[in-house]
Parts: sequence; C-alpha cells; structure tokens
Amino acid sequence: MPDFKPKNPDYERQIRESFLRQKFIVNLGARLGHVSPGRVEIELPFDEKLTQQHGFLHAGVITAIVDSACGYAALSLMPPQSAVLSVEYKINMLAPAIGERIIAKGWVIKPGRNIIVCSGEAAALDKGEKKIVAVMQGTMAVVRDRPQLKG
Amino acid sequence: MPDFKPKNPDYERQIRESFLRQKFIVNLGARLGHVSPGRVEIELPFDEKLTQQHGFLHAGVITAIVDSACGYAALSLMPPQSAVLSVEYKINMLAPAIGERIIAKGWVIKPGRNIIVCSGEAAALDKGEKKIVAVMQGTMAVVRDRPQLKG
Amino acid sequence: MPDFKPKNPDYERQIRESFLRQKFIVNLGARLGHVSPGRVEIELPFDEKLTQQHGFLHAGVITAIVDSACGYAALSLMPPQSAVLSVEYKINMLAPAIGERIIAKGWVIKPGRNIIVCSGEAAALDKGEKKIVAVMQGTMAVVRDRPQLKG
Amino acid sequence: MPDFKPKNPDYERQIRESFLRQKFIVNLGARLGHVSPGRVEIELPFDEKLTQQHGFLHAGVITAIVDSACGYAALSLMPPQSAVLSVEYKINMLAPAIGERIIAKGWVIKPGRNIIVCSGEAAALDKGEKKIVAVMQGTMAVVRDRPQLKG
Repeated sequence: MPDFKPKNPDYERQIRESFLRQKFIVNLGARLGHVSPGRVEIELPFDEKLTQQHGFLHAGVITAIVDSACGYAALSLMPPQSAVLSVEYKINMLAPAIGERIIAKGWVIKPGRNIIVCSGEAAALDKGEKKIVAVMQGTMAVVRDRPQLKG
Repeated sequence: MPDFKPKNPDYERQIRESFLRQKFIVNLGARLGHVSPGRVEIELPFDEKLTQQHGFLHAGVITAIVDSACGYAALSLMPPQSAVLSVEYKINMLAPAIGERIIAKGWVIKPGRNIIVCSGEAAALDKGEKKIVAVMQGTMAVVRDRPQLKG
Repeated sequence: MPDFKPKNPDYERQIRESFLRQKFIVNLGARLGHVSPGRVEIELPFDEKLTQQHGFLHAGVITAIVDSACGYAALSLMPPQSAVLSVEYKINMLAPAIGERIIAKGWVIKPGRNIIVCSGEAAALDKGEKKIVAVMQGTMAVVRDRPQLKG
Repeated sequence: MPDFKPKNPDYERQIRESFLRQKFIVNLGARLGHVSPGRVEIELPFDEKLTQQHGFLHAGVITAIVDSACGYAALSLMPPQSAVLSVEYKINMLAPAIGERIIAKGWVIKPGRNIIVCSGEAAALDKGEKKIVAVMQGTMAVVRDRPQLKG
C-alpha cells in the first residue's frame, strides 16, 4: 500500500466520532480498532443474534463492517469538512463466518477528488486460527457540499 | 422476467421457515412478503437503531435485506433438500434510505444447476412516494451436499 | 425506466461522433444502433477473430460493448461539454455468446451530477432466437473539467 | 498469497495451449508471461487500434486481459480435464491506461471445488514508471462435465 498523507490533520478524531454516531454498527457490538491514513480496522465479537439460517454470521453483517472500514479508510484521506458515502461495493463470501470474532479491514487503493476506490476483507478468528471469510472492492464518494452531513 | 417452474413443490414453506431462522434479519424487524417462483419480497420498517452516521438507514441493512430477498428468490427454484449461500453480490446505493419503510425485492435472472444469478432492488416508501434507493446484482450457490444446512 | 430529459440538445450527434473515435470498438465490427435519452444499443456481428478458447465470443468483447452502451447511455444525459469515463462495472456471464450477432443495451438507472449508475445486458441472436448472455451494473463518471476529453 | 499446490502436474502446458486458442486475446497482441500455481501474468504492448475515444487503451481491452489472467490463475489450480469459465467480475478503472505496455496479473484468493475467487490488476508502464490502472475481483467456474471444452 502506498504511504498516504492525510489532508485533514484531525482525521482520526472525526472518524472516531462518526463511528459512534453509526447506531447500526455500534448496536452490532462492533468496535473501531486501528485507524491510520488510508487504513481502518473494525472488530466484531461473534453474537448469535447476528446469524443467518445456518448459524453463521450473516453476510449482511460482514458486509456492513467491511463497508464501514472501507468508508472510514476513504474518509481518512479527505479534506476537512468532508463526509463519505458508499457509492457501491462488491463482496465475495469465501467461507462461513464462524468463530470468536471478526476483524474487518478497509484500505484505500486509489484516492481521488470525488471518488476513492477501496479494498477490504473480513477475517474470522476461530480458536486461534485466522481465516479470510470475505473480500470487498468498492467505491466511496467524497461529499463536500452538504454541511448537514458530518463524517 | 421469464416464467419459472419450481422444482420443489414445497418451496414456499421452506423459504418461510428458513427466513424465521435468520436471527439477524428477524432482529432487524424485517418481514417476508410476497414469495413466488424466482421472486421474493422483504419489508423493513424504518428504525432509528438501524441508521448510519447521517441518520439514513445503514447501507449494510439495505444490503442485508436485498441479499436475503435474492437468496430466497434463488432458493425458490432449487430442488428439494438444497440450501442457498451467497457467493457474491454488488450493490449500488442510489439515494439516502429514509422514510417509513423499505421494500426489498430479489428476482432470478438466470437459474443454473450450481449457481443462480439474481437481481435485486430496495425502494424507500416516504410519505406515499416510492423511490429506488439501491440496486443489486449477485450470484447464489446451490448447496446440495451438506445436509446440516437447511434452506 | 423513467422518462429522462436530456440536458444537451445535441446529445445524439455527440455520441455518434464519439463512437466513431473509439477505434477498438469500431475495429471489433460494432455499430451504434438506437440512441435515446438514457438508452443506447450497440450491435456486433459474430466474428471468429473475437472468440475465446472454446469458440464463444470472448467475455472481454461482450463486456466492452455493454460497457460502451452504458457509457453512452450516461453521456446522453450529461450537460454539453461533458465527457464520460467508466468508474467501474460488474458483469455476470449467463450463457455462451454464440450466434449471428450480439445486441448490447445500456440504460441509466440513476442520473447524477458527478456519477451516473447504469444497467446493461447483451443478447445473442442465434437462428432467430434471442438469449440474454450477460448482465451488467456499473458506475459512470461525468467529466467536466478536462476540455481535452470529448464525448 | 498462500502457497498453492496444483492438482494438474501439467497445468502450465494446458494454460499455454489454451491461451493460444484465445483468438481475441492473441489478436490484441497479448503475450502470456509468468505462470505459477494460482498466479498468471499477461503482457500487452500499447496499440492505437485498441483505444477508446480519448486515446487511452479501452477499458474493455484492460478488462479482457485481466479477466484472462484471473481465469488462467484459476485454471492452474483445477484438476486435469477441467476447463474454466468466467462467472462474473467487477473492475474499477483507476487511471487512464497509457504508456508503452500493460502488465495484467491475476491470482487466486480462494480455490474451491466448483468456484474459484480471484483478484487481478493491470499496471501501465509509461517511460519507466509503473502505475496501477485497474483492479478486479471475480469468480471463476470449474467446468468438469463438458469434454468439448478444453482449458
């Protein structure tokens, strides 16, 4: 990954505050982990309430936290006063998401003035073993002209 | 959409039972609506607990119910004793998801022995107006050889 | 599909001129068909030079003409002096592309100031029968600030 | 990338023969480069005949060679007598493809019995500089039961 220089010196605080306003993600039980320019991690403990019909973590849950990690990875490189919106993403499910917890990572592949391309992945930690369960490729929009949107 | 003939005469019961085992989707407050061969609808009332940082329904929530509608649309055309798994999907977010409720639809574009290609969309109902907020294209796997997976 | 009103009264001429500058697409043997606001068709006669290892039309050829139809569908709704660039697309291959010719269609799902979301498909015409061989969902960028790019 | 063990000891010969039967790819001027288990490279010299309306290499050309690299990366891990078909792929265009030549790479993210998930990228070499111009994520099918398909 290239070495990115943030345009917003206060990017980490903005991301951590924005994360706490994401009620859905916080209600899942997710916690924001590592935050650096162009790279963000989110952790989610396994919870039976978040499963699909076969007892695995629901693909929608995995998608939500990887998308969120990608979105904040993009936001970390935006100018101050910007907000991030997901334009689109594509995710491949590689293995059932089972174990003690999920680590989602998002990182910037290509920053841009209006759109930022990101990659992401989710890994399940199961009895000390780590297994990639999903990979994502997505596009994030830089929103500058809507002061009502923060983060 | 072509006129599909189900291979499992009991497909609707299988889908409705499977839906109720999807704890995550049920906990969101979603309800399974119309089910017919190759076509499924899911409804979700707006809930502040499901929002992202700007107060819109979280993209992950939208994705989860559209994916679920697509998955069951695929399952409706599978032989008895099959289960469905999402291989991958891509979703474009078109507009903020705001309003009283979301209607997600999934339908089969191309059935196949091992994989089934689906399209889906989510519409927000806001003060009597209906607006498409997301469109999906995805690939579902037919799982035949794992008796522990149902639906 | 909604009824779109073009912002550029001269959109069709711009698209037809741009098409002829796409050397790769013209060299494939493709012809621009129907052009209307938010909707474009491209036709390609089958040619053995365009096949993959099994004798079907190459997925890359199918992708190129569907992407091109989507790009011009997006361009048809842009203001004068705009150019179009593909941000990303996802395509599912549904059936081998074989027959006398391929009809690719692209249409706008959601126009926007900076990005335009499109859907597309390719159908093969084989002995009087028409079969959908691929479906696409993609995102196009409106390029305004680069006068050296036309169309 | 994990260290993959090929199931077909003769995988490289199968891939090199299959490549030469891809008339479209060969006609583009592409050459098969490095081939190892789960990893394949394809090189393409810039050619004005392959450009789009702004003089860059056409997105369809880039897509075709990255898809081809991904497909052969998948084939390298399949059992003897298998063939590969692209189920779907998603590609993000990151920068205009301009320069002396393009290096496309495809590698396996997750092998499977029926489907194999791959990532890919294309880099442009321009006056000694290398720049990533596209990234792909896609799904390949293992075709076992159709003896008329080779490679």
